[in-house]
Amino acid sequence: MNAVIGADFSQRLEEAAAAVESTLDQLLGATTLEGEIARPQRLLAAMRYATLGGGKRLRPFLVIESARLFGVTGAGPLRAGCALEMVHCYSLAHDDLPAMDDDDLRRGRPTTHKAFDEATAILAGDGLLTYAFDVLADPATHADPRVRAELTLKLARAAGLGGMVGGQALDLAAETAQTALDQPEILTLQAMKTGALLRFAVDAGAILAQAHPEQARALSRYGAALGAAFQVADDILDAEGDTAALGKRAGKDAERGKATLVSLLGLESAKARRDALVDEAVSALAGFGAAAATLAEAARFVARRNS
Amino acid sequence: MNAVIGADFSQRLEEAAAAVESTLDQLLGATTLEGEIARPQRLLAAMRYATLGGGKRLRPFLVIESARLFGVTGAGPLRAGCALEMVHCYSLAHDDLPAMDDDDLRRGRPTTHKAFDEATAILAGDGLLTYAFDVLADPATHADPRVRAELTLKLARAAGLGGMVGGQALDLAAETAQTALDQPEILTLQAMKTGALLRFAVDAGAILAQAHPEQARALSRYGAALGAAFQVADDILDAEGDTAALGKRAGKDAERGKATLVSLLGLESAKARRDALVDEAVSALAGFGAAAATLAEAARFVARRNS
Repeated sequence: MNAVIGADFSQRLEEAAAAVESTLDQLLGATTLEGEIARPQRLLAAMRYATLGGGKRLRPFLVIESARLFGVTGAGPLRAGCALEMVHCYSLAHDDLPAMDDDDLRRGRPTTHKAFDEATAILAGDGLLTYAFDVLADPATHADPRVRAELTLKLARAAGLGGMVGGQALDLAAETAQTALDQPEILTLQAMKTGALLRFAVDAGAILAQAHPEQARALSRYGAALGAAFQVADDILDAEGDTAALGKRAGKDAERGKATLVSLLGLESAKARRDALVDEAVSALAGFGAAAATLAEAARFVARRNS
Repeated sequence: MNAVIGADFSQRLEEAAAAVESTLDQLLGATTLEGEIARPQRLLAAMRYATLGGGKRLRPFLVIESARLFGVTGAGPLRAGCALEMVHCYSLAHDDLPAMDDDDLRRGRPTTHKAFDEATAILAGDGLLTYAFDVLADPATHADPRVRAELTLKLARAAGLGGMVGGQALDLAAETAQTALDQPEILTLQAMKTGALLRFAVDAGAILAQAHPEQARALSRYGAALGAAFQVADDILDAEGDTAALGKRAGKDAERGKATLVSLLGLESAKARRDALVDEAVSALAGFGAAAATLAEAARFVARRNS
């Protein structure tokens, strides 16, 4: 199905991923920053392992493309994208822990606690989460402190108790609950666990560009619909996908008796919902004209990816 | 030995602790903030458990008293102090985990993973760390975004890879190493694991007050000496203290064959070093005159506390 995605889009996605990889590699280098005392070798190695060498870098790509929509390019969006990717990667390292999802495989490689040890995986996650806010608050990300403070506040809200971390808590609770979640509960869980960070990605672009509030709101609607489409697509992938392409175990949800949009709606309705959400995301971009073509393709890509 | 601490000081410390408790209770309430989707009940309960109802609140006290030195009082220092306390409490919840120090008792109560479960304790820590940056970046902490961004950046540097998290990684490595740490290694470990947050506490006061750089540097020297005194005092307490007063197990270091300043220097030299660091901290305050009397007493208090 990836044939529907244009070559130009794929190239942009790959170029952004390469720039993100190189910036993460540099941020997670051995050199201490002002105020740091030392960077312990094994911890740094685990933080690099959890972050480098994998993934489509979809979240940073969305930051970069959203900022580009307003003509803002360069180090700012790249650094903000890397901060967001650190939060995403820390959450994976913690979610994979034995006390959480207990996964051995991630992106086709041993998970961080398998490659190192549990204590180091916990600390590497803590270090990445903390570093994300360092990167956002650093003047190198934006000259205006108002922008840096707003990025920090928005990321904290998206990633914390009322966002991603809260979503993970709901997900764990669902696995041990007596009754399966109903549709509104699943939608809330997904909006928190996955949607909040994806929405932050596009919001970050608008913040970096100090976009007009009306344009920022339109972009935010796009981000919310894209996030919801991403999660339905995830449920469909888990039901249909194969472990090799995913780089992690497929069929986990059914195995655990977990309610998903596929188990609740059926496969065909879930696909219809996914496609409707893509249309909604694309519609939200209408006011931006042709400049938003890449973001529109990103919504289609998110919905039709096979891993 | 607490008799040397004045009644006025004790009262200030208690008043600050009560204000911190009440602010933390409010920050960790059920009401969602703008941008939050929901606050899952069990996760919130664990975050409250890990944070409320205990501790001297020394770090927030130092923020509050450092800001007061420049005439800044009210919600700003209180909120910044609460953010710092959240970081401190998250680090305790994670350090206590079975994969880390594996402690069952903290402040005389079951540790967070004992009272809830491991997954919830990990997520509660993640949520508290994230929330700390939310609080700092919120306009309610300071009207000037430059101040909010600087608080964020400084806390991230103090708490992350090159500070507290890195110090914890070094501490874990020391426990499994073949050779005991030497004195420079112990001092680096302690400066990272404990010193960095204590120093941030007084730096935060200067940042909130937008203090003159020279005054900020003097206060920072005070914070560094106080942090070092705190850690020697901790090693002395572990060697001399009793479990009931500490609210956690005493004698842990010796039990684990861990090198400390007491094992390296001997008890008397460690005490002499502690007292010299207190003098150094007090000297750094000389330029502030009588206004710094409370901070001077705080340095003596830190060195001579019995828990």
